Amino acid sequence: MIVVLKPRASKAQIDAVIREIKKLGYKPHAISGVERTVIAAIGDERAHHTLETLTSMEGVDQVMPVQRRYKLVSRETNPKGTQLTINGHVFGGKKFQVIAGPCSVESESQIMETARAVKKAGATFLRGGAFKPRTSPYEFQGLKHEGLKLLEKAKAETGLGIVTEVLSEEDVDLVAEYADILQIGARNAQNFALLIAAAKSGRAILLKRGMSMKIEEWLLSAEYVLSHGNPNVILCERGIRTFETLMRNTLDLGAVALAKAETHLPVIVDPSQGAGRSDLVSAMCKASAAINSDGLIIEVHPNPKEAMSDGAQQVTLSQFGKLMTELKPFIKAAKRS
Amino acid sequence: MIVVLKPRASKAQIDAVIREIKKLGYKPHAISGVERTVIAAIGDERAHHTLETLTSMEGVDQVMPVQRRYKLVSRETNPKGTQLTINGHVFGGKKFQVIAGPCSVESESQIMETARAVKKAGATFLRGGAFKPRTSPYEFQGLKHEGLKLLEKAKAETGLGIVTEVLSEEDVDLVAEYADILQIGARNAQNFALLIAAAKSGRAILLKRGMSMKIEEWLLSAEYVLSHGNPNVILCERGIRTFETLMRNTLDLGAVALAKAETHLPVIVDPSQGAGRSDLVSAMCKASAAINSDGLIIEVHPNPKEAMSDGAQQVTLSQFGKLMTELKPFIKAAKRS
Amino acid sequence: MIVVLKPRASKAQIDAVIREIKKLGYKPHAISGVERTVIAAIGDERAHHTLETLTSMEGVDQVMPVQRRYKLVSRETNPKGTQLTINGHVFGGKKFQVIAGPCSVESESQIMETARAVKKAGATFLRGGAFKPRTSPYEFQGLKHEGLKLLEKAKAETGLGIVTEVLSEEDVDLVAEYADILQIGARNAQNFALLIAAAKSGRAILLKRGMSMKIEEWLLSAEYVLSHGNPNVILCERGIRTFETLMRNTLDLGAVALAKAETHLPVIVDPSQGAGRSDLVSAMCKASAAINSDGLIIEVHPNPKEAMSDGAQQVTLSQFGKLMTELKPFIKAAKRS
Amino acid sequence: MIVVLKPRASKAQIDAVIREIKKLGYKPHAISGVERTVIAAIGDERAHHTLETLTSMEGVDQVMPVQRRYKLVSRETNPKGTQLTINGHVFGGKKFQVIAGPCSVESESQIMETARAVKKAGATFLRGGAFKPRTSPYEFQGLKHEGLKLLEKAKAETGLGIVTEVLSEEDVDLVAEYADILQIGARNAQNFALLIAAAKSGRAILLKRGMSMKIEEWLLSAEYVLSHGNPNVILCERGIRTFETLMRNTLDLGAVALAKAETHLPVIVDPSQGAGRSDLVSAMCKASAAINSDGLIIEVHPNPKEAMSDGAQQVTLSQFGKLMTELKPFIKAAKRS
Repeated sequence: MIVVLKPRASKAQIDAVIREIKKLGYKPHAISGVERTVIAAIGDERAHHTLETLTSMEGVDQVMPVQRRYKLVSRETNPKGTQLTINGHVFGGKKFQVIAGPCSVESESQIMETARAVKKAGATFLRGGAFKPRTSPYEFQGLKHEGLKLLEKAKAETGLGIVTEVLSEEDVDLVAEYADILQIGARNAQNFALLIAAAKSGRAILLKRGMSMKIEEWLLSAEYVLSHGNPNVILCERGIRTFETLMRNTLDLGAVALAKAETHLPVIVDPSQGAGRSDLVSAMCKASAAINSDGLIIEVHPNPKEAMSDGAQQVTLSQFGKLMTELKPFIKAAKRS
Repeated sequence: MIVVLKPRASKAQIDAVIREIKKLGYKPHAISGVERTVIAAIGDERAHHTLETLTSMEGVDQVMPVQRRYKLVSRETNPKGTQLTINGHVFGGKKFQVIAGPCSVESESQIMETARAVKKAGATFLRGGAFKPRTSPYEFQGLKHEGLKLLEKAKAETGLGIVTEVLSEEDVDLVAEYADILQIGARNAQNFALLIAAAKSGRAILLKRGMSMKIEEWLLSAEYVLSHGNPNVILCERGIRTFETLMRNTLDLGAVALAKAETHLPVIVDPSQGAGRSDLVSAMCKASAAINSDGLIIEVHPNPKEAMSDGAQQVTLSQFGKLMTELKPFIKAAKRS
Repeated sequence: MIVVLKPRASKAQIDAVIREIKKLGYKPHAISGVERTVIAAIGDERAHHTLETLTSMEGVDQVMPVQRRYKLVSRETNPKGTQLTINGHVFGGKKFQVIAGPCSVESESQIMETARAVKKAGATFLRGGAFKPRTSPYEFQGLKHEGLKLLEKAKAETGLGIVTEVLSEEDVDLVAEYADILQIGARNAQNFALLIAAAKSGRAILLKRGMSMKIEEWLLSAEYVLSHGNPNVILCERGIRTFETLMRNTLDLGAVALAKAETHLPVIVDPSQGAGRSDLVSAMCKASAAINSDGLIIEVHPNPKEAMSDGAQQVTLSQFGKLMTELKPFIKAAKRS
Repeated sequence: MIVVLKPRASKAQIDAVIREIKKLGYKPHAISGVERTVIAAIGDERAHHTLETLTSMEGVDQVMPVQRRYKLVSRETNPKGTQLTINGHVFGGKKFQVIAGPCSVESESQIMETARAVKKAGATFLRGGAFKPRTSPYEFQGLKHEGLKLLEKAKAETGLGIVTEVLSEEDVDLVAEYADILQIGARNAQNFALLIAAAKSGRAILLKRGMSMKIEEWLLSAEYVLSHGNPNVILCERGIRTFETLMRNTLDLGAVALAKAETHLPVIVDPSQGAGRSDLVSAMCKASAAINSDGLIIEVHPNPKEAMSDGAQQVTLSQFGKLMTELKPFIKAAKRS
């Protein structure tokens, strides 16, 4: 880390900082500049005590970390990139994977109809929430175990892998029985107890970026999963919260490019949450393919206007078919299949 | 809700929307304006199906809710405001309550020394994290059960009530044994499984506002607690995430005034998280008292520069004493004691 | 507009609101709901007085506009979309336009070398700042008139059209003499005096989105230009300010799709400002083409490490050549040329 | 500045960076750490070329400035703080100054009635917009010169100093004739041409913080004024743009405390813009006094429901009187008068 002193820091103050740096396990290296002194504190910033506490000392202006805080997820750990094979399909490889399905599992007919349609259009995984995180306690909370069983049925018929969200540590084992990929939603992206429980299940984890999560924090949440013994993480950009109100979130495609450069993990995009409006989903899918994401997770519903959650952002079965067709040239342009 | 049609919506489109509104349990009332039609959909917006799904219909421009989504926490439910008596002290009454203590419980000497000092300076509750939510898995995660026992010891000697965070559903019972107030942190403010588990413990809940949580969402998280049978909630504003980088968060004191007007729950402020820098804490405490919050939760540490978490924002014992003295005239100006 | 009353608004309060609505030129239409009364106020929201002032009346909870505030820029005004021919090239047509050049014009050799290279690689316009808006008064403020003359020279040799920023009303005439397209930068996107002066010059206007501008506000700034007699506006998304710090801005490609749907104006993207880092520019260009923008404005410099402004985000001449080659399949996939 | 190299930067890359640092006028000082090399570049960061351009070099990870970019406005330049005497009243001294008046000057009766009332309640300056920056071109743009004359009349009768906004370089001389304090609004806070023109008028400048302006940028805009020969700047916090929608802006009172610490300039607060709703203004005024701001600028209107701009946030004359009375104990608690 770099400790920047204030312009008029006294000799005594500087010496006290140097002593403290040593005490906290780093080797200090002071440099006198034109206006102020800076001290480079040499040592492993992950293993040692954080030096940011030094800002509470007199004479200290700021402390700036220079190392990455994550290690296992870092691109340097695996420069070629990780390929995860799940239910026979590879994330992070040449194939562009499409996960599709309703926001919530609502009924057998709804999920079966959707599963058949998205399979036919080219999706390889089926999504559908059985446990739903809802802003209000009065909103539909999902069919729970019943919903999981319906997903199982859809998988049995179509062969599609299952992606579904887990909300509670106590449900991890149950959900892991049915899911090929456990989804950790944006609201739980820093629910570390859940991340650790999900990691221990051994299932692949789809880790959504939190609503106001810096990319570094997102990668550190992934680091929680890897450091608890589970290397199977797929990152998912789903829009961040900004001041704009015409869209539910602001899809941050730059974050996809950056995450791909910083880590070796596959990165996919959720354009449905990103836009919050179905009319923008198709355009965002194309842009996601173009920015070299590894796939998409798209909300599809046979009858969005009567959906029990997030109807405004779900596309119909026929819109999905059209979208998949229109998407192809962009996948090809990205040298994917 | 108000359903706004597009300027050139056809008669057939309008009729389809009206049919759907009826089907979803509302009574439609169409009004033709200069440029477009709007349909008021009369019905209880909480009990019925959301109409926002209608934006997926052709001809619909937007759907605007007109009712509040929360009920139990609403000021109308208890216009005089709720007073919660916890460990003999009242939140939401005339007395301005101060909760103080270290970010993390680190050792017996640290917590005992702090407890004595904050008690002497006028605090009525002791805070201290035993389970710590840390952005990185490599950072200090708290003393856990051992930390809770140290808090118990501090309470036994000083009589201070205990406020401590719970991170996991599985720890709720354990933490509730030691805590007078269970803290739900910003990262878990929409961890509904944890909110429900904490509600069921019966303990008072200190509910921090999430980092990018709209006030409405914050109140709906409180609604989760009340609707699961626990009326003892204290709201806590702790700063929101914005583009500013000189402070860790942007303390939103307007939200305190607004939350006090919208709900009957006590509202306190965490200026330590709000600023992320100890030099601003005192000024923010004064402003918090002036805006008529019901109290403060302040991070205090005997030796911040060696704190195991968040040293930059913790004040020393002597700074805390000075702060409490300087705060008095503002508490008095707010007609509190 | 819709005026939403509070749940317990009295008859007298409602009547007062109705009287006031009439007085302000609207026709009121009251509807009694389950919980509260709403009043639809019928009338042209642009021509009449705003009703938002009614929120200062007792009993009023909120006022919600239902109409768009812009008209001339609205897609409805020109459903097929506007095509602007500038210096022989069409914005908003089938051809994907690329504007390229250095952040600042720095010297004759710098601008000539860049102009030749970007022309060769396929750009149709040359960008280069002669007047530079700099956050600090101590930073390079541009070569001013001298810079404009160098741009003229580059145009004379290469035939490239010139895009350059104007900062001051007093410089509009001067800059308009040299520029084919006057750029209004993000910091001046609500500098209405400058917008009006630029509009009156008759030159095409490249209107960047302000750093924290809602899409509606951006379109209203364009409406200033059109309503002052100049129909030649190109919108430019260049990233918005968010909490993320790894990139200078967050490129909002959803806003491009939305602006294309809401207006008939051409919309282009500035990936250099959007990322603030040259390593992400190429990926963002591809995504911009995929989302169906009408073109790009890219910062290119022969020697970014010694650039006098924004070196971190400028690509080299050879990187630009490579980028243009890689971009082609995506332009083709978007059915552009 | 500190140049941080990538973990595996080669010797050749490091040497190239060192050569470039020297070439750009700094003295390099390389330090080899555990994981990577950092190079401290010693020199005046304001006078020399920025080194951020070095991030375009291979092997460079990031460049971190260590010095403040502003100088004249820095607290170190005048540790005791600046006191500005304007129309016989001192900003930055012991007296808490209140500027009050309507958003827009609308008529003689409106401004005279307001002036008398705010004077009686204790305000020392009258605010009122004659030139109005409006988001839409169809909204009321102010009475312009006629409005200035009305302000002059109000000053003649009441003796109140005049604060009014200037929008255009071309109007600076005219507005400066009538105004004691020229207001630069949030939308023009980085309109450097206007800042320079206003600086040259010699009038005191009230500089509002831009909607998404970092504190550093705000101080650099003030630096523009001081470095163009005008030391009379008052900073004004007026809320920043965030994701919250229940308030028009998020009032950032922490920024007031920070600006007071970082600069020697007086800092006041605009709670009317900060909240955008009149019911929160009084509470925010108290908090502003408590955080040790030097004053307030408050929107007051005889009949807000018919105001021609921003009616929702203006308080009535009687609300203002009450507010001023309630504010007194907080001003006293802040040791002001």
